[in-house]
Amino acid sequence: MTNKLTLALLQLPVGNDVDANVRRAVSAVTQLKADNPKLQLAILPESFNAPYSQEDFPKFAESVPEGPTCTTLSQLALKLGIYIIGGSIVERDAGKLYNTCTVWGPDGKLLAKHRKIHLFTMKIEPENAGGVEFDEAAVLTAGSDLTVVQIGQQKVGIGICHDKRFEELARIYRNMGCTMIVYPSAFCICQGPMHWELLQRARATDNQLYVVTCSPARDNMSGYVAYGHSMIVNPWAQVQREAGEGCEFIVEEIDFDVVEQVRRQIPIFKQRRTDVYAKAPKL
Amino acid sequence: MTNKLTLALLQLPVGNDVDANVRRAVSAVTQLKADNPKLQLAILPESFNAPYSQEDFPKFAESVPEGPTCTTLSQLALKLGIYIIGGSIVERDAGKLYNTCTVWGPDGKLLAKHRKIHLFTMKIEPENAGGVEFDEAAVLTAGSDLTVVQIGQQKVGIGICHDKRFEELARIYRNMGCTMIVYPSAFCICQGPMHWELLQRARATDNQLYVVTCSPARDNMSGYVAYGHSMIVNPWAQVQREAGEGCEFIVEEIDFDVVEQVRRQIPIFKQRRTDVYAKAPKL
Repeated sequence: MTNKLTLALLQLPVGNDVDANVRRAVSAVTQLKADNPKLQLAILPESFNAPYSQEDFPKFAESVPEGPTCTTLSQLALKLGIYIIGGSIVERDAGKLYNTCTVWGPDGKLLAKHRKIHLFTMKIEPENAGGVEFDEAAVLTAGSDLTVVQIGQQKVGIGICHDKRFEELARIYRNMGCTMIVYPSAFCICQGPMHWELLQRARATDNQLYVVTCSPARDNMSGYVAYGHSMIVNPWAQVQREAGEGCEFIVEEIDFDVVEQVRRQIPIFKQRRTDVYAKAPKL
Repeated sequence: MTNKLTLALLQLPVGNDVDANVRRAVSAVTQLKADNPKLQLAILPESFNAPYSQEDFPKFAESVPEGPTCTTLSQLALKLGIYIIGGSIVERDAGKLYNTCTVWGPDGKLLAKHRKIHLFTMKIEPENAGGVEFDEAAVLTAGSDLTVVQIGQQKVGIGICHDKRFEELARIYRNMGCTMIVYPSAFCICQGPMHWELLQRARATDNQLYVVTCSPARDNMSGYVAYGHSMIVNPWAQVQREAGEGCEFIVEEIDFDVVEQVRRQIPIFKQRRTDVYAKAPKL
């Protein structure tokens, strides 16, 4: 039984035309599958179907899984017989909006949806790497559920962008048996150089698993400029593959035997002192 | 009220002669204080008084705080009127051995002792960066207590070397109000290039505090070759100061206003979703 998985990261540009964005994603995934018959999993960026913009979130919201973007992803997964981690879209449900990642099986069925748990609300001052100001919490509602999906032989934890700043979430996923965490992400160009790679390598080394991000391509003319640099970090915390800033697709076979190798050689999971951690003062 | 602290990292060589090792440390701290009257805190390496060697641990064990090394550190702290984080020594207590860090106040009193919680037992295979094999657990007993000391205005968490691989410990210290974590460490030259800087920057960015390590100087002729690269990482996760590999002393004033600045601009602490984390399956 093979312990390998061939996945694709689609660092796609995102423009104002939702139909065009989704068509471009479908076309790219279809072409990648044609070129790489072994492809089993395609991963799209956060907010892949519409501009990432506080003001525009309501305008582009869809229902999950009935909306047009989800319907298209479902059909695509079924047609190609692959898993799709559908980046994220703005989901409308019962009058609320969420930043939601859908995960599709090769049969076209929705395996899970992950609503971003930690909303991106931040104000970094301009003297620090140019600064950034964003307030998802003004418009969106946070999700409240952990999301682990079975992809082939692997348990995969799902987070969206800002979720990856929270090591406690990654710890939970690893404790639940995950061998990979996927974070569709649209990090800003302020935080990117500071913390993008660091956070992924940190989660990978602490939890001894693969960490994968998929960002939109950078567009310096857009209101919110995504960092790019979609990345696969292996369980040694090495950057195995990294995109640049523009539109770029990465196809990579990853070997989950490496998870077991690292966990055996650096046996920190069984060395954890949960008895001591339990002594922490309750706050 | 100043929110600054001037500290020194003493990346000292460690030879087979305990008296000589301790004398060298005393002499170096004394000289640094003479050269830097503002010096408030001196930090020594893990196993600063004796070779770091499984076989030798029993030979060099002392009682804490009655033993000669502790007595010397207490007198030094009192004489210079500074805090000392005394790296670590092998402690003998009730027939057991511990890897123990002592912390001394400017009045010469023992503020705390930290017994290494996570023992360094590991076998990395030679094809991975040369490999390493060590088994502290064969000889030492693990500590079972969290250690937070008050140094000036700051709460400081203490860990020793392998303790820094465990993000749950750092999380607890941050939750307890720490603005700095100090890890006297003797990372090996296999793990060093892979994870030394990464782990410190990870703890710093997740917990938005200073992370400080102090290693012995590298000695390629010793049985266990320490990595060096003693380091101060600031709450932005930037490496503020870093030693090379040889004997080297760093004196640095650090500004704890930066802790507040980072915590305000990237407000992840209050964005933590402990309600969601509580949903994690019990293992």
